[in-house]
Amino acid sequence: MNTHHLPQATASEQAHRLQMRRMGIDTYQEMVVYMRSDCHICKSEGFEAQSRVEVWRGDRHIVATLNVVHAAMIATHDIGLSEAAWRALGGVDGELVGVRHPAPVLSFSAVRAKIYGRPLTSDGINAIVRDIADGHYSDIEMASLITACSGSRMDMAETIALTTAMINVGQRLHWDSEVMVDKHCVGGLPGNRTTLLVVPIVAACGLKIPKTSSRAITSPAGTADTMETLAPVALDLAQMRRVVDLENGCIAWGGAVNLSPADDMLIRVERPLGLDSDGLLVASVLSKKIAAGSTHVVIDLPVGRTAKVRSFEAANALAGKLVGAGDALGIKVRTIITDGEQPVGRGIGPALEAHDVLAVLQNAPGAPDDLRQRALLLAGHVLELGGKAEVGKGLAMARSVLDSGAAWAKFQAICEAQGGMRVPPKAAYTHVMCSKHRGRVIAIDNRRLASVAKLAGAPKAAAAGLMFHAPIGSIIEIGQPYLTIHAESPGELAYALIYAEAQENLISLQEL
Amino acid sequence: MNTHHLPQATASEQAHRLQMRRMGIDTYQEMVVYMRSDCHICKSEGFEAQSRVEVWRGDRHIVATLNVVHAAMIATHDIGLSEAAWRALGGVDGELVGVRHPAPVLSFSAVRAKIYGRPLTSDGINAIVRDIADGHYSDIEMASLITACSGSRMDMAETIALTTAMINVGQRLHWDSEVMVDKHCVGGLPGNRTTLLVVPIVAACGLKIPKTSSRAITSPAGTADTMETLAPVALDLAQMRRVVDLENGCIAWGGAVNLSPADDMLIRVERPLGLDSDGLLVASVLSKKIAAGSTHVVIDLPVGRTAKVRSFEAANALAGKLVGAGDALGIKVRTIITDGEQPVGRGIGPALEAHDVLAVLQNAPGAPDDLRQRALLLAGHVLELGGKAEVGKGLAMARSVLDSGAAWAKFQAICEAQGGMRVPPKAAYTHVMCSKHRGRVIAIDNRRLASVAKLAGAPKAAAAGLMFHAPIGSIIEIGQPYLTIHAESPGELAYALIYAEAQENLISLQEL
Repeated sequence: MNTHHLPQATASEQAHRLQMRRMGIDTYQEMVVYMRSDCHICKSEGFEAQSRVEVWRGDRHIVATLNVVHAAMIATHDIGLSEAAWRALGGVDGELVGVRHPAPVLSFSAVRAKIYGRPLTSDGINAIVRDIADGHYSDIEMASLITACSGSRMDMAETIALTTAMINVGQRLHWDSEVMVDKHCVGGLPGNRTTLLVVPIVAACGLKIPKTSSRAITSPAGTADTMETLAPVALDLAQMRRVVDLENGCIAWGGAVNLSPADDMLIRVERPLGLDSDGLLVASVLSKKIAAGSTHVVIDLPVGRTAKVRSFEAANALAGKLVGAGDALGIKVRTIITDGEQPVGRGIGPALEAHDVLAVLQNAPGAPDDLRQRALLLAGHVLELGGKAEVGKGLAMARSVLDSGAAWAKFQAICEAQGGMRVPPKAAYTHVMCSKHRGRVIAIDNRRLASVAKLAGAPKAAAAGLMFHAPIGSIIEIGQPYLTIHAESPGELAYALIYAEAQENLISLQEL
Repeated sequence: MNTHHLPQATASEQAHRLQMRRMGIDTYQEMVVYMRSDCHICKSEGFEAQSRVEVWRGDRHIVATLNVVHAAMIATHDIGLSEAAWRALGGVDGELVGVRHPAPVLSFSAVRAKIYGRPLTSDGINAIVRDIADGHYSDIEMASLITACSGSRMDMAETIALTTAMINVGQRLHWDSEVMVDKHCVGGLPGNRTTLLVVPIVAACGLKIPKTSSRAITSPAGTADTMETLAPVALDLAQMRRVVDLENGCIAWGGAVNLSPADDMLIRVERPLGLDSDGLLVASVLSKKIAAGSTHVVIDLPVGRTAKVRSFEAANALAGKLVGAGDALGIKVRTIITDGEQPVGRGIGPALEAHDVLAVLQNAPGAPDDLRQRALLLAGHVLELGGKAEVGKGLAMARSVLDSGAAWAKFQAICEAQGGMRVPPKAAYTHVMCSKHRGRVIAIDNRRLASVAKLAGAPKAAAAGLMFHAPIGSIIEIGQPYLTIHAESPGELAYALIYAEAQENLISLQEL
């Protein structure tokens, strides 16, 4: 038998080095590296197409998927990097990087145990979240975890452990003030862009509200997407602190400040799957709030047949989990269950929702009253929960700063502090859909409206989405426009239109 | 409002054409296409990195993931194809292909419903399986489906519907003979390569056994992987029929004959996840058998603490599902629950297992008796179930053709008919692990042994794996070899060794 004696430093510990090359291939957030099949490391390490490989440069490490290149795109001593991998390693053309087998992802055995019906332990969850934040989970492993935690399969202990683990792997903000308020809306309701109103109202009243928001998960626009059409949102910690010190509030993208980074990794896979999980949702919301240093948070839970939360039973259950987990984690949570039967405002999509917000802030004639009323309700609760208004007086206080223009002035000041106010873009292509029937609008399918807006390009195309002209209760005549699709490309416009026209019950009419 | 009137043939219906280019990038089975960010189709359709795009050439269609190329690798009117995409479309350099948005994967809503606790309907399953076979599911969508169906979450109706759907999307073999026998082993037991013995024994006795086998799912070697070290296994339908007509039996790779192609797509994602599901397993096994035209099948269920099936309760439950689903689908199933406490034979890995098989067929001195006995037991049951031997006489009949050399002659004839017998490869790098303690072997961790073999490169590296020298009950002295790791590269050898040395209970010794 041909026995091979290993050197003292084993082969996999030895640094195998290749020269890094920027391939100019954009694989979005997925890390991909390209190596020649006749490269010495492919041969010695047994790497093949789709192998997971670890690449490091100094103290930066990534785990990437290998694509094997047969053609002469790169030399045998080169390693090509996708744009995401290049950014993560801080690429320098021709510099040497190390390449080796990644450590096995041991924490996935905890995911398997969960799938087979055993609860996730704190240790298991900590290991999973650490591995996710370190980029060790492949997309299919994250998809499996998300699926295993969907459909009410996480209990309170798991949820609290997951929240804690998510906070621990990211940055955490600390503020001098004892009361730091926040608000959050559990999505699923197109156009519900109350944050952009609540923050300036509350900040104008003197409470500190350092709002971090996410980009869209399964919706056509997240708060950060909408705010970005009005001002820069990718603030770092120092910038956020400066804006809040100056104006009491900010509306920043949470991803840029690295609060709960594992949550951001999961969201990237959750988005295309479109799955809901109370446990993941509670952990996602509370980990971001606690990491942001919030002490008091009001959470809006819109309920509707086609909203994210579909029944009052489900909303009450979710509310109980949010409050219970909050108590256990030392954050005061108040949930407000609101009507989620139809879109809020008229626009769906980043820029179109921004136009609605501006109209309310400016007390413009014809500004969407539903958006205004929801924002005032939530702002009132925040003012009460944060101790700025007496019980029952919050709503009136909120209304006075909105009516006086103080909230609008505060919003402009916040936008300036965040880097300068912008004019939201307008779409190059629009199409008006007109009713073929006469009747009273009795129901709206929010999920399919959201799909139309997404097919039109939202949220990536900021000007894309739709304007909705037919609220529940309104009477529509034959030929009357009920929605307008906005898109930045004719292909997307056509795609959204084909889908919209194929839906029978986008809007349900009652004959008159 | 700037209203855009669509032409009669909408933009997404119009064929957008690009010239196909072979990129020489191997992404394994994943379809990837490369387009310039300034390509007119990216702009008009709103395609971005990671968009799912449909590409067609004549009647061939693929749905691929888009990578956007910024550098000047290809021209703006070109579309680059990964090797898998190039093969699937039958690539011809410079020929025009169509590019458009793929239709939304509507069937995934049935997966979501399953995740939320509602059963899969027949219609839902049919739509899912059709979409998977057509390549419309992304890897994360398949991972989600597999997770949702794992851990006993599929009932009998779902399992039968899934099996039927899987049969219907692939080819189905029809044979003249009324009795077509088959055998199958539910994996998890390293080295259990009885198929390569049962087929020649049964065929030598005159029963027809057109065996199709899979490659490894989560194990270090599948039957097809092991057989491939001895003869070609990628037979098409005509070749399989010719071999069976000539020799009564064959051992072919099922994937090459397109039986139950959706199962093959799922297996590609199941493999890295390493999840088990009774429902998916029953559907996978029975869909392949029924599609192959089998009428009577014996299924080996090895039970052991570290085998795939870990308890007799689990084995009985699985056996009930296999027999029950078989009855409903018109195939006679007999399950045999066997000992799965330790590896069968001495080799683990394609070529190492082939050497064990050859020793048994040749009645070589020192041939692994456990492998021989298991094969005879199963062959005896097949001979009885298929009506060739009376009840209680199958084992003796099997033994006589093995002892006489008739089975060995039949095996060589089958290999010749499949394209010519081969000599299995030997590994270039080996490392002997010796015991640091003295004692009696009382337990073996099959899962971790399998991991060692996989880290050494099996099954992709055919010569890789391990030879196991210490069966349960044997006495090991200090310094005595208990396993030898085989690898085709030093990196893989080191990786397997580091893992093996870190395991405390790969083998459990009782002090003497």
